[in-house]
Amino acid sequence: MNRTILVTNDDSVHAKGIKELVVVASEFGNVLVVAPNKPQSGMGHAITITKPLRMESYNGFDGVEAYSCSGTPVDCVKLAVFEILKRKPDLLLSGINHGENSSTNVLYSGTMSAAIEGAMEGIPSIGFSLADFNSDADFSAAKNVATELIPQIMNKGLPNNTALNVNVPKVSYRDLKGIKVCAQAHAYWEDKFDSRRDQFGRPYYWLTGQFSDRDQREDTDLHYLKMGYATIVPTHFDLTNYGALRDLKYLDSEGEF
Amino acid sequence: MNRTILVTNDDSVHAKGIKELVVVASEFGNVLVVAPNKPQSGMGHAITITKPLRMESYNGFDGVEAYSCSGTPVDCVKLAVFEILKRKPDLLLSGINHGENSSTNVLYSGTMSAAIEGAMEGIPSIGFSLADFNSDADFSAAKNVATELIPQIMNKGLPNNTALNVNVPKVSYRDLKGIKVCAQAHAYWEDKFDSRRDQFGRPYYWLTGQFSDRDQREDTDLHYLKMGYATIVPTHFDLTNYGALRDLKYLDSEGEF
Repeated sequence: MNRTILVTNDDSVHAKGIKELVVVASEFGNVLVVAPNKPQSGMGHAITITKPLRMESYNGFDGVEAYSCSGTPVDCVKLAVFEILKRKPDLLLSGINHGENSSTNVLYSGTMSAAIEGAMEGIPSIGFSLADFNSDADFSAAKNVATELIPQIMNKGLPNNTALNVNVPKVSYRDLKGIKVCAQAHAYWEDKFDSRRDQFGRPYYWLTGQFSDRDQREDTDLHYLKMGYATIVPTHFDLTNYGALRDLKYLDSEGEF
Repeated sequence: MNRTILVTNDDSVHAKGIKELVVVASEFGNVLVVAPNKPQSGMGHAITITKPLRMESYNGFDGVEAYSCSGTPVDCVKLAVFEILKRKPDLLLSGINHGENSSTNVLYSGTMSAAIEGAMEGIPSIGFSLADFNSDADFSAAKNVATELIPQIMNKGLPNNTALNVNVPKVSYRDLKGIKVCAQAHAYWEDKFDSRRDQFGRPYYWLTGQFSDRDQREDTDLHYLKMGYATIVPTHFDLTNYGALRDLKYLDSEGEF
């Protein structure tokens, strides 16, 4: 039986990365594309609730059923599953993102939020990101990684409630060191704002900043990406810090306080 | 020394919930408010990167320095820390949200994403949510919970990389059973779309759906909220499913594949 593969991203239906991912996905099943009609980078797990969503048929993928949507990547997943398919696809692929989504960037990433939303709905889901923001980036190493992983995940499935966060360094396939399953690094952004004045003298602000890796552990995505490996972080949506539960039990209280 | 407390939310500077939270926060330190200028519910951890941010002084809080911002809750935290204060505040409070942010709703919640962003920046951070969407909701029980928790967190701090997700049921303070520290429930949304036609006959879609609690565990926020407790989930931003790392190691590969 032919399997249904849902493909989405956050760079929009027009991005090179999703076109490359559709080429790979088509080797393994019937592809359905539902992706944003404009760039939605940095949208995280946002959903559209205060205005209605628009969705239109899109002809940009040769012979592949595709829709462009006015909403976020997570909206796209929900529309695909609950409005178009009206059932779960066999696999969800998100990306290939133009730019890395390693470490804590997973929280800001629309690409990975789409994959996490897939996991929430019980769909084996993988997000792919390439460490190259260029709109004309070379996706060949990332496509090789995807071609290697997809059949294995289709055969063996994924642990419950877990999506894969796959990042590929900006190297040629020949220079790729291999693939490592590892943890999300605890890096963060040292943000800055570029403050300017508009033509009326009123201030406006551009978010900018520098990425800072304070994680000293070796088994992390940032560590292996620097070494030239593609990385896979099993990513779930249980944000409970179980290790902290006991430490905080002193806040428990019964009755009036 | 007087301490600086940053207050934000996702329902906007105009919401009753943030006004109530500012009243509580003012008992414990100097309050700075930076919050969205319009409702940003469901924005998750979104940040604004493709357009500039606007921020204006706002006079709606008696004698309290406040700004309204065109961006998301996470943008507000970043602007407060890196543009206004240019240092970390001593505490970040987000809310009080009009509506519950228990279980997996934490991922969609702008209120909790602001608190998680605070934790990423090393600030002790607490998000408060009340299980009542009404714009004129009664926040007295939630205010009592906040008044109970804030001084304890200011004294003892929080575990590294961890924000608190505090939810308060829709009951009077008198009927509140107490406070429980517990885990995030694995509930999810069974989404539906309400598909309609506009005046030109073109389709549009409203996201709707039903909340479904499949989690059988007893030590979860949904469980205790149903019993009438306020709940505290220690919430972190490491999404690694460590339990799944070993199971997925078979995907490791060295050299060409």
